[in-house]
Amino acid sequence: MSKIFASKNGTKKDVIIKKAASLFRKKGFIGTSMRELAENIGVEASSLYNHIGSKSEILQHICFKVANDFMLQLNETEKSETTTINKLEKLISFHIHMMMDVYDEVYVANHEWKQLEEPFLSNFSNQRKLYESRMIELIKKGIQKKEIKNIHPQVAVFTILSAVRGLELWQGHKKIVSIKEIETNMINHLLNGIAK
Amino acid sequence: MSKIFASKNGTKKDVIIKKAASLFRKKGFIGTSMRELAENIGVEASSLYNHIGSKSEILQHICFKVANDFMLQLNETEKSETTTINKLEKLISFHIHMMMDVYDEVYVANHEWKQLEEPFLSNFSNQRKLYESRMIELIKKGIQKKEIKNIHPQVAVFTILSAVRGLELWQGHKKIVSIKEIETNMINHLLNGIAK
Repeated sequence: MSKIFASKNGTKKDVIIKKAASLFRKKGFIGTSMRELAENIGVEASSLYNHIGSKSEILQHICFKVANDFMLQLNETEKSETTTINKLEKLISFHIHMMMDVYDEVYVANHEWKQLEEPFLSNFSNQRKLYESRMIELIKKGIQKKEIKNIHPQVAVFTILSAVRGLELWQGHKKIVSIKEIETNMINHLLNGIAK
Repeated sequence: MSKIFASKNGTKKDVIIKKAASLFRKKGFIGTSMRELAENIGVEASSLYNHIGSKSEILQHICFKVANDFMLQLNETEKSETTTINKLEKLISFHIHMMMDVYDEVYVANHEWKQLEEPFLSNFSNQRKLYESRMIELIKKGIQKKEIKNIHPQVAVFTILSAVRGLELWQGHKKIVSIKEIETNMINHLLNGIAK
């Protein structure tokens, strides 16, 4: 048994999925073969199938786990008894940490979800839309409560999501600026602007 | 001679580059062949070579034209006698319009520039870094002049560039929200925030 497979960081299935996320990010879902994945883990391709049914199944695991994490955070945030601004701070912070902590998985969920097979493809696409529309609702409520300026909610959500998603390009700069500094500055920028 | 080739919208070379930008965006630089490009224009592959030396040369044209446009705007903006905030407004607006007006070219310059051959690869990479560092300088000057809050200039530039670059994903929503609305809202958001 390979060392990685015997790792205590989760089950064998977890190890496979973690390694697959890294390969899917670098080479794309289509560009990665099960044989290559097995080689990278250090096992025979045939033994992968004892733990996971197919390459598509791995992609489903990655995408739906990421979706679960974001949805759970959104549920909690919506329910919390606090200001809209605090809620947005929480959400932006969560996005930044997901981008930094489980980068491969979030990247794959963002870039490769269109490779999902039905019924997962439609289901995942709908969850993405739902997530965005719930964020838009959050902003709308903030406007009603006069916590947020009278802006276009959809463009605001889009601007926020684009900014945090852009952290993909920041991976190479990780050492130059700390995550804490990125987090503080980006949240402040997206909520309060930079103009004096 | 094909209809597209006989178009009055520029030279034959322009037609080739325009069509190539569209194909490179959809299928990637590596995924697009000269034969496919020729088929899409409606000419023989051999006749492409009367106008352009190679696929690499097309990519150079696309990337360096986009670089010229952004650099020219940055030069003008830096020189203009106005506030830092106005300068940033100008720049963000320019980015948004480039993203909307010459989407294929900007997308290719952003995603496929790493396929450039040397010496173009290093040269283009350096121009990208220079552009970012000049934007950071602009923000720093704004902070000195107390027009901009005491923020982390690099993170601010990154947030702005990520937000506008995210407009790639907005292409499908073009009909839902007008470019003018996106422009006004995004500039306002990135400079003044959304919190009341």
